Amino acid sequence: MFEFSILSKSKKSRARAGIIKTSRGIIKTPVFMPVGTLGSVKSLSHNELTDCSAQIILGNTYHLYLRPGCDVIDKFGGLHKFMNWDHPILTDSGGFQIFSLAKLTKITDDGAFFQSHIDGSKHLITPEKAIEIQLCLDSDIMMCLDNCIPYPSTAKIAKQALDLTTKWAQRCKDKWNSLPKNALFGIVQGGMYKDLRAESAENLKEIDFPGFAIGGLSVGEPKDIMMEIADFTLPKLPYEKPKYIMGVGTPKDLVDLVSLGADMFDCVIPTRNARNGQLFTDYGKINIANAKHKYDTMPIDTNCQCFTCKNFSKAYLRHLYKSRELLSYRLNTIHNVYYFINLTKRMRDAIIKDKFDEFRYKFNKKSEN
Amino acid sequence: MFEFSILSKSKKSRARAGIIKTSRGIIKTPVFMPVGTLGSVKSLSHNELTDCSAQIILGNTYHLYLRPGCDVIDKFGGLHKFMNWDHPILTDSGGFQIFSLAKLTKITDDGAFFQSHIDGSKHLITPEKAIEIQLCLDSDIMMCLDNCIPYPSTAKIAKQALDLTTKWAQRCKDKWNSLPKNALFGIVQGGMYKDLRAESAENLKEIDFPGFAIGGLSVGEPKDIMMEIADFTLPKLPYEKPKYIMGVGTPKDLVDLVSLGADMFDCVIPTRNARNGQLFTDYGKINIANAKHKYDTMPIDTNCQCFTCKNFSKAYLRHLYKSRELLSYRLNTIHNVYYFINLTKRMRDAIIKDKFDEFRYKFNKKSEN
Repeated sequence: MFEFSILSKSKKSRARAGIIKTSRGIIKTPVFMPVGTLGSVKSLSHNELTDCSAQIILGNTYHLYLRPGCDVIDKFGGLHKFMNWDHPILTDSGGFQIFSLAKLTKITDDGAFFQSHIDGSKHLITPEKAIEIQLCLDSDIMMCLDNCIPYPSTAKIAKQALDLTTKWAQRCKDKWNSLPKNALFGIVQGGMYKDLRAESAENLKEIDFPGFAIGGLSVGEPKDIMMEIADFTLPKLPYEKPKYIMGVGTPKDLVDLVSLGADMFDCVIPTRNARNGQLFTDYGKINIANAKHKYDTMPIDTNCQCFTCKNFSKAYLRHLYKSRELLSYRLNTIHNVYYFINLTKRMRDAIIKDKFDEFRYKFNKKSEN
Repeated sequence: MFEFSILSKSKKSRARAGIIKTSRGIIKTPVFMPVGTLGSVKSLSHNELTDCSAQIILGNTYHLYLRPGCDVIDKFGGLHKFMNWDHPILTDSGGFQIFSLAKLTKITDDGAFFQSHIDGSKHLITPEKAIEIQLCLDSDIMMCLDNCIPYPSTAKIAKQALDLTTKWAQRCKDKWNSLPKNALFGIVQGGMYKDLRAESAENLKEIDFPGFAIGGLSVGEPKDIMMEIADFTLPKLPYEKPKYIMGVGTPKDLVDLVSLGADMFDCVIPTRNARNGQLFTDYGKINIANAKHKYDTMPIDTNCQCFTCKNFSKAYLRHLYKSRELLSYRLNTIHNVYYFINLTKRMRDAIIKDKFDEFRYKFNKKSEN
């Protein structure tokens, strides 16, 4: 089951609050999806994700395909039971990792030949295979295999990648049609070229999907270009379908992209930065290693309701971080994941109350301080 | 406040079940104390320790003195508030770490001069200073500064260390008398020499303490020698006082030492081995990295009530461990800490029902399999 409906729309921007219904529960949008690369959101257990109000998490098909492998996950009937998470899961197709992490040996119309970054073993992922793996993972939202390109890329390369992405999207759709299960999203590519983004969006609309994603952003391009492409591309996608910006971004990015009409986000920023001692607040990032926190008996944010802020001081968090204690990574991660999820929740509440623009104005004001 | 009473005594061995009352709550003995070296039991949060039925944890004075330092902990009024653990804490005196971890520069009658293992800074810990630091930590049970020696050591060296330990114990007691607070335990030394152990026990009994520990065991000596020394020394200590074997041991060691009359234990085995993928059960250790667990959908122990066993399979734990996921260390640690604490609880229950010898027989039978 997969249904999306829009409940409220901001009057002065494209921001909207919606609801996705899946067989594993509802997802209120805008939504932030913590990244659970290898079957765990790094350092967190399933109950902590629930405590952080996570509604859906992301699993990386490439990583899970290589380790532990579909044969293992199949024994559990999917990723949910394997990792004991009974809420929705979205899986990427592996496209991004094949192009960024693996040693890519060859792309043909058929698929992508690559070598594992772990043991050098050789693999071929076709669009059909990407769907098969995701069916084995039993993800609630699957993604089409796409052809990712670096930034900058020439228009010619971007066009070739777009065309292949379109062909693969059709093959993914055909495979999915023959085995209807859960949802499948198409991914818009086209580099930083508006005409190509428009063409890609048009192609995918014709194939038709339950939802649409914009890929190939946050790959090294300047922030204003990313926002310009998102601003241009989002309205090209069907209004009534969920729109997912892949791999983005900072809290400010999320607020800006929601104002442009995006509904779904995933990013490693909250988890990765947590492990580097960076903690997010409305007033900017805190570097917990900073000596000024040494004697600070106050939490990261006195208004924050996360487990970390309700139980621990900045001085303790600094001590754990400086001592490289394992607990440090978790407590930091809990705060950041809670912050990102709560930020989307606050935006949703503001949209529903038709106060999103006020929220955004105040948010930008605060983060400037 | 510190009161110890013995509730039950095994008829066929020296095993006893007791209760320690402190101002921060009661401790039922035999008790296993997880080691929280730097203000966290590695990878665990305070609520998980409670879920594992931890009654008391250990803090390392040497480590906490160097990092974050007493000035930081003093801002919180002690270690409990700093780490948000409101149950009892026992702190060692730093003696063992000074002799094993720091670069020891000189021992005089006055105290131990050493260089920090972190930054090479120079420090002098006197018996009085060891008490002062532990007062700052506000531990519920403090330990005297003792002079630890390696194994093997000559009788001459063991005797010198014993004499210094006795002098320092008297100075610790004097310091503690002038600032009465919480409890202070004396530590028996004497190497692997029974006459010296007897002499040390006698000296400490004369000084008199609320409880007594046996130090200098599990320092590399053969297991039978360790057990022989413990067997010899434990009855030399006052029956009506709690007896604590420092830094020991395996599950079998705990069962054997309880039969010899020991009440309290601390050891890094459950936490350290967890991080190395070794998981404890009544039927022996499981190496979770082993390929035979790859497809195993069962928990570590179907009878275990820990969070890990109630939620996760061996296949998932193996995957996390092989992938070096942070969650691995925590889930493994939870199981092992629960196992060790539950083992002492099971022994206590058996003693109270006068079935300890039966318990021990069955335990040894199972672990042979």
